[in-house]
Amino acid sequence: MSFSVVVSGATGYAGGEVLRLLATHPEVEVKTVAAHSSAGQRLGDLAPHLRKYANLTVQDTTVENLAGHDVVFLALPHGASAEVAAQLPEGTLVIDAGADHRLESASAWEKFYQSEHAGFWPYGLPELLTSEGKQREALRGASRIAVPGCYPTASILALNPGFAAGLLQPRDVVIIAASGTSGAGKSLKPHLLGSEIMGGMLPYGVGGGHRHTPEIEEKLSATAGEPVQISFTPTLAPMPRGILATATAKVKDGVGEADLRAAWESAYTDEPFVHLLPEGQWPHTKSVQGSNHAVMQLAFDEHAGRVIVTSAIDNLAKGTAGGAIQSMNIALGLEENLGLAQEGLVP
Amino acid sequence: MSFSVVVSGATGYAGGEVLRLLATHPEVEVKTVAAHSSAGQRLGDLAPHLRKYANLTVQDTTVENLAGHDVVFLALPHGASAEVAAQLPEGTLVIDAGADHRLESASAWEKFYQSEHAGFWPYGLPELLTSEGKQREALRGASRIAVPGCYPTASILALNPGFAAGLLQPRDVVIIAASGTSGAGKSLKPHLLGSEIMGGMLPYGVGGGHRHTPEIEEKLSATAGEPVQISFTPTLAPMPRGILATATAKVKDGVGEADLRAAWESAYTDEPFVHLLPEGQWPHTKSVQGSNHAVMQLAFDEHAGRVIVTSAIDNLAKGTAGGAIQSMNIALGLEENLGLAQEGLVP
Amino acid sequence: MSFSVVVSGATGYAGGEVLRLLATHPEVEVKTVAAHSSAGQRLGDLAPHLRKYANLTVQDTTVENLAGHDVVFLALPHGASAEVAAQLPEGTLVIDAGADHRLESASAWEKFYQSEHAGFWPYGLPELLTSEGKQREALRGASRIAVPGCYPTASILALNPGFAAGLLQPRDVVIIAASGTSGAGKSLKPHLLGSEIMGGMLPYGVGGGHRHTPEIEEKLSATAGEPVQISFTPTLAPMPRGILATATAKVKDGVGEADLRAAWESAYTDEPFVHLLPEGQWPHTKSVQGSNHAVMQLAFDEHAGRVIVTSAIDNLAKGTAGGAIQSMNIALGLEENLGLAQEGLVP
Amino acid sequence: MSFSVVVSGATGYAGGEVLRLLATHPEVEVKTVAAHSSAGQRLGDLAPHLRKYANLTVQDTTVENLAGHDVVFLALPHGASAEVAAQLPEGTLVIDAGADHRLESASAWEKFYQSEHAGFWPYGLPELLTSEGKQREALRGASRIAVPGCYPTASILALNPGFAAGLLQPRDVVIIAASGTSGAGKSLKPHLLGSEIMGGMLPYGVGGGHRHTPEIEEKLSATAGEPVQISFTPTLAPMPRGILATATAKVKDGVGEADLRAAWESAYTDEPFVHLLPEGQWPHTKSVQGSNHAVMQLAFDEHAGRVIVTSAIDNLAKGTAGGAIQSMNIALGLEENLGLAQEGLVP
Repeated sequence: MSFSVVVSGATGYAGGEVLRLLATHPEVEVKTVAAHSSAGQRLGDLAPHLRKYANLTVQDTTVENLAGHDVVFLALPHGASAEVAAQLPEGTLVIDAGADHRLESASAWEKFYQSEHAGFWPYGLPELLTSEGKQREALRGASRIAVPGCYPTASILALNPGFAAGLLQPRDVVIIAASGTSGAGKSLKPHLLGSEIMGGMLPYGVGGGHRHTPEIEEKLSATAGEPVQISFTPTLAPMPRGILATATAKVKDGVGEADLRAAWESAYTDEPFVHLLPEGQWPHTKSVQGSNHAVMQLAFDEHAGRVIVTSAIDNLAKGTAGGAIQSMNIALGLEENLGLAQEGLVP
Repeated sequence: MSFSVVVSGATGYAGGEVLRLLATHPEVEVKTVAAHSSAGQRLGDLAPHLRKYANLTVQDTTVENLAGHDVVFLALPHGASAEVAAQLPEGTLVIDAGADHRLESASAWEKFYQSEHAGFWPYGLPELLTSEGKQREALRGASRIAVPGCYPTASILALNPGFAAGLLQPRDVVIIAASGTSGAGKSLKPHLLGSEIMGGMLPYGVGGGHRHTPEIEEKLSATAGEPVQISFTPTLAPMPRGILATATAKVKDGVGEADLRAAWESAYTDEPFVHLLPEGQWPHTKSVQGSNHAVMQLAFDEHAGRVIVTSAIDNLAKGTAGGAIQSMNIALGLEENLGLAQEGLVP
Repeated sequence: MSFSVVVSGATGYAGGEVLRLLATHPEVEVKTVAAHSSAGQRLGDLAPHLRKYANLTVQDTTVENLAGHDVVFLALPHGASAEVAAQLPEGTLVIDAGADHRLESASAWEKFYQSEHAGFWPYGLPELLTSEGKQREALRGASRIAVPGCYPTASILALNPGFAAGLLQPRDVVIIAASGTSGAGKSLKPHLLGSEIMGGMLPYGVGGGHRHTPEIEEKLSATAGEPVQISFTPTLAPMPRGILATATAKVKDGVGEADLRAAWESAYTDEPFVHLLPEGQWPHTKSVQGSNHAVMQLAFDEHAGRVIVTSAIDNLAKGTAGGAIQSMNIALGLEENLGLAQEGLVP
Repeated sequence: MSFSVVVSGATGYAGGEVLRLLATHPEVEVKTVAAHSSAGQRLGDLAPHLRKYANLTVQDTTVENLAGHDVVFLALPHGASAEVAAQLPEGTLVIDAGADHRLESASAWEKFYQSEHAGFWPYGLPELLTSEGKQREALRGASRIAVPGCYPTASILALNPGFAAGLLQPRDVVIIAASGTSGAGKSLKPHLLGSEIMGGMLPYGVGGGHRHTPEIEEKLSATAGEPVQISFTPTLAPMPRGILATATAKVKDGVGEADLRAAWESAYTDEPFVHLLPEGQWPHTKSVQGSNHAVMQLAFDEHAGRVIVTSAIDNLAKGTAGGAIQSMNIALGLEENLGLAQEGLVP
C-alpha cells in the first residue's frame, strides 16, 4: 500500500530535501507540493534537480490544500506551521520540520522566540535516550512529530550517551559547531553569496542567544535528570551542506576512556543511522553527505578532564528531512530505513 | 531473484561510485569487492561512506576472485582490465569502466595509448543514435560492455542528435569541457591538492592529444556517416564532481533554431536519463550531482552560424558508474532505472 | 608628490578592488569614497577588509563629490557613469570601469545595450597591438579612459598577437570562458548563493547575446584589419575570482606552431603584466589571484588546424581594477607597476 | 639601504608566503632561495605565482648557501631548522618559522616532539602582553626569533588580554579552531586532495595530543602568572587559507562584559595588525586573507559565565610568514608594517 503525502515549503531547502529523499521511498506517493510564494508555478522550473516531481504545480499552503493526505510535511517559517497545524485533522500525521513544537518549556519558547508557545509534540529523534528508553518508542503511532533542529541533532547525539550513563558533569558543556550554508536557507543575504563565503569562515550568533541553545539544554537535561547548561557557538563554513559539531564536557570523578567508549557504544551499536566510528577514524561531513547517517568519534582529554565528541551529519538530511522521514516511517509502522538507503556522496 | 556482483577497483572513485549506487539496487548483491593495493583491508576503513559494505574485506584482483559472479565490474587502469577480462568466462557479464574496449579503431587505440588494441565491446551509451537506431538495442543480452569515458559521455550526448539528423557540418567542431577533480582519480598529484585547486581553474592536455578525442570522433563519425573532426580542450574546475561540456559546431546551410530543437527533442524526449531542458533553463552540474541524469540546453548563434550545446553530467555517475549500471540493467533485462532513482543532490 | 583620488561605486566589488590595490600605491591618496545606496555609512562597516580606509564616510555619487580630485574612478552601472562623466572637468582624469565608453561603434552599442551611445574613450588595455603599435601609447596623458570588460581582457589578450601577425582566419573564432562569481557583482540573485554555486558549474547568456561579444570583435577586428567574428560562451565557476578563457581560431594555410609561439612571444616578451608561459606550464587562475598579471599558454592543434590559447586573469584585478590602475599610471606618467606589485595569492 | 635575505624551504607553503610578501618589501633583497628536494630547479617552474623571483635557481639548504646573508628565514621541518641554525653566525638574524625554538619548557618539548630540546628563542608575537609589557620590546635587535605556530597565534591573541587583566579563570579553557588546508602543508595525503576536502569538514588530532597545546598553554600561563590549562581541538575546513579560532574561558566572579571589552580594547587599540572588531561585526577569515591582520570579536555568555572570543587570521600570513616579517622589521629597526601593507583579499 502507499501513503499520500503533501510537502509544504517545497521550494525551500528543507522541503526540497524531503522531496529528494521521498523520491526513493517505495511506500509513499507525493500528491501535492505547496509553497506560498511560488504557488502556480511548475516545480521543475523552481527545483530542476527534482525530476520525478518536475511536472507538479506548486499549490498555495492553505489548509484546504494540505488536508486530505495521510502525511503532511511542514517546512515553513516558525509561527506559520503552528497556525496551519492547528487546523489539520487529528488523524493526519503532521511532521513539522520547523521550530514551533520542539520545546516543552513555554517560558523558554517565549524567551527565545518572543511569541506564544504553540505546544509540544513528540520529538523526532528516535535515537535519543530518555528516562523511558529510546525516544523511538514515543514515535510509534504518533500523529504529530516535531523534527529537531539541525544543530541540536548533531549536538544531542554527540553528548546524550554520556548524560544517560551519568558520566558527565552537567555544567560547563561547550559546543562549537560549523554548518554548511544551506543551514541558513535560501534567504538572499550578502554574506551568503558564493563570492563572500567561498574560501572563508565566520561565526555568528555568539553569546548564548542562539535559539538552538534551549532545545539542546532541554533534551540533555531530561536525559541527565538534572539541569544541563551549555555554551553554544555556531559558525558558517564554505560548504553547501554538513554540520561538524565539537561537543565537550567535564567528566565526573573517576570516569575514564573505557567508561566513555562503553557508554557510546552501547547507546548506538544497534542503531541503523547513528554510529560511533572505529578508533582512529574521524567524522567527515562528506562521508554522510546526502545520507541519513550520523557519525561521531570521542576522545578523552585526560589533561583537561574532558570528553571531546566530534559528530558529523548532513544538516538537510539527518538534520532535517532524513530525520523527518525516519520518524514518519516509525510513526506509520514502516521499516525505519525506507527512502533512506542512500549512502554518503563521496567524493 | 538477485544477481551476484563483484566490483574490482573498489577503493578508487569509479569503483566506489559503482558500490554507492548498487547499495540501492534491489536486484543485485555485491558479494565481493576487489582492489590490488588494499587487499586484505576492511572496506569500511578505506571508504567510510559505504556503510552497507563496510564489513567486506577487500580481495586481490585475481581472476579467481572475480570469476564465479554473474556480473563483474572492472574499474582498473587501462591494460589491467583487458588482461583480466580475457580470462573471464564468456557467459559472465563483464562491464569495463576503463578505456581498453572503447575504441573500434585499432590504429586510433595504438596511436593514443601506445599499446596493443584489446578489441572492441558494445559501447555502453544507450541513448546514442546509431545507423541501427538507439545503441540501447545493442546492449540487450550483451555479455561484454565498454563504459564510455566521462568527457565522451557529455560530449557525444551533446552533439549526437544534430549529426544523426544531418544538421551539422562534420569539420570544425569545438568542445571545451570543465571537469571536477574526481575525474583525475585519487592519484596523489600536487595540483590535485585542495590547497592548490580550491578557488582556481586551469586547462590541461590542450592540443588534441587527449585520449578522449578519438573516442568522441569515432562515435560521432559513425552517427554522421562521415568523418567528424573535433578540437577538444579539457579544464579542471574547483569542484569534486561534475562535467560541464560546451560543444559547438557549424550548422549546414538553411538550418535554423527550430530544426535544431526538433532534432534534440525527438532524440531525447522518451529517454529516462537524458534531457533537453526547457528554453531559458541552463544545465547546472549540481542539478545532476550524484544522479544518472544528463541535462543540456542548446542555443543557435545565428551570428556565428553555430549551434552551441551545453551539457552537464556527474562524471562519476552518468559519466561512469551510473552509465555502467544502466547498461547492466539493459543487458540483464532489468528495468533500466533500478539503482538509479536518486535525484541530483542540491544544494 | 601625490594625486588625489575619488572612487565611486566603492562598496561594489570593482570599486572595492580599486581601493584594495590603491592601498599599496605610493603616489595616490584616496580622499573620497562614494556610493549612492550606502552614502553616510562608514566604509569599514561595509567593507571590513579595507582597513586603511575603514574610517572614511561614504559620500553620495554626486558631481560635487566627485569633482575636485585629480583622478576619478567610476565603478557604476552603465548609463550612470556616462551621465556623471559628462559633467566632470576636462582636465580631470576619469577612468570608467563600466561599459559606457568601451565601444567605438554606436550601432553595436545601441544593439547590445538598447540605449544611446555615450561615445568612445581610449581603451585601457596597454598591451593591445593596434595598427599604431601598442595601445599603451594612446593612454599617455589621456584624461578619459575606458577600462575593458573582464572577459574581453582575457579574450583579446589571448588572440591579439595572432591577428596582429596575420596568422589567424578571422571567421570561426570560438571563445569559451569560465568566470568566478564576483564577475556577477554583489547582486542578490538565488543562483549566486554559496549553497547553489559551491560544487557546481553552469553556462549563461549562450548564443551570441552577451554584451562582451561586440567589444571583443571590435578590438580584434581593428587589429586584424578585417572583421573578426566570434562565438562567445560564458560560464560560471565555483570560485570567487578568476577567468579562464579558452580561445581558439583556425590558422591560415602554412602556419605552424613555431610561427605562433614567435608571434605571442614577441608581443608579450617585454610586457610587465602579460606573459606567455614556458612550454608545459598551464595558466592557473590562482597563480594570478589578486594580482595584475595575465598568463597564457598556446597549443597548435594540427589535427583541427586550430590554435588553442588558454589565458588566466583575476577578473577584478587585471580584468578591472588592476587594469584601471595600470592605465592610470600610464596616463599620469608614473611607473606602470605602482600599486600593482602584489604577486598572485597561492595557495 | 637594503638587507640581503635567504629563504629556505622556499618551495613549501610557508617559505613561498615569505617570498610573496617580501616581493613588496622596499628594504630587503631576496638573494637566495633554498630547498633541499628541488635544488637546481628554476623557482618559476615550481611556484609560478612568484613572478618577481621566477628566475632564481633553488639552492640546496646547506649552511654555506644560507650563511652570508643579513637575514635567514627557515621554513623547514622541525629538527632540520635547529640543526642548521646552530651553525649560522651569531650576528645573522635567523627567523625560524618552524617549531624548534618555540617552547621554553624542555620537558614539554620532549613530551610532545619526542626529541631533544633545541632551546628557546624570543617568541615572534609582538602583540603578546607579558609581565614586562608587550613582547615587541623583546624582539628589538634580536638575532634569533621563533615564529609562533598558526593555531597559537590565533588562540593566544584571542585570550591574552583577558589573562593579562586577570579576568579569566585559568582552568577549563576550551579552544576549537578551524584551519584551511594549507596548514597541513603540501604533503601528498589522500585526505588533502581537493576531491576529498571540497565540500566537507573533519576534526583531527583530538584529545590533547596536538603539539600546539603546550605552546598555547606556556604563553598564556606566563601572561596569567599561573598555570593555564586548555582543551584544544583542531578541525580542517574546505578553504585553502585561514584560521577561525573560537576560544572560551570562564570569567572570574564579578567580571562583566564591560570589563572584558575594556581589557581587549586597551590591549589592541594601538596595534597596527590586531583588532577587536566593532560590536556587531564578526571576524571573517576572508577579510584578512593574504594580509597580516588578525581580527576578533568577543561575547560574554552570561548564562554560561564564559567569555567567547572568535578570532580570524590567515594561517600563512599573520599565522606564519607575515608574523615572521613583522618580527624581522622590529628586530632590524624598520617600520613594522613594511612589506605588510596588503589588505585582505575580498571577495
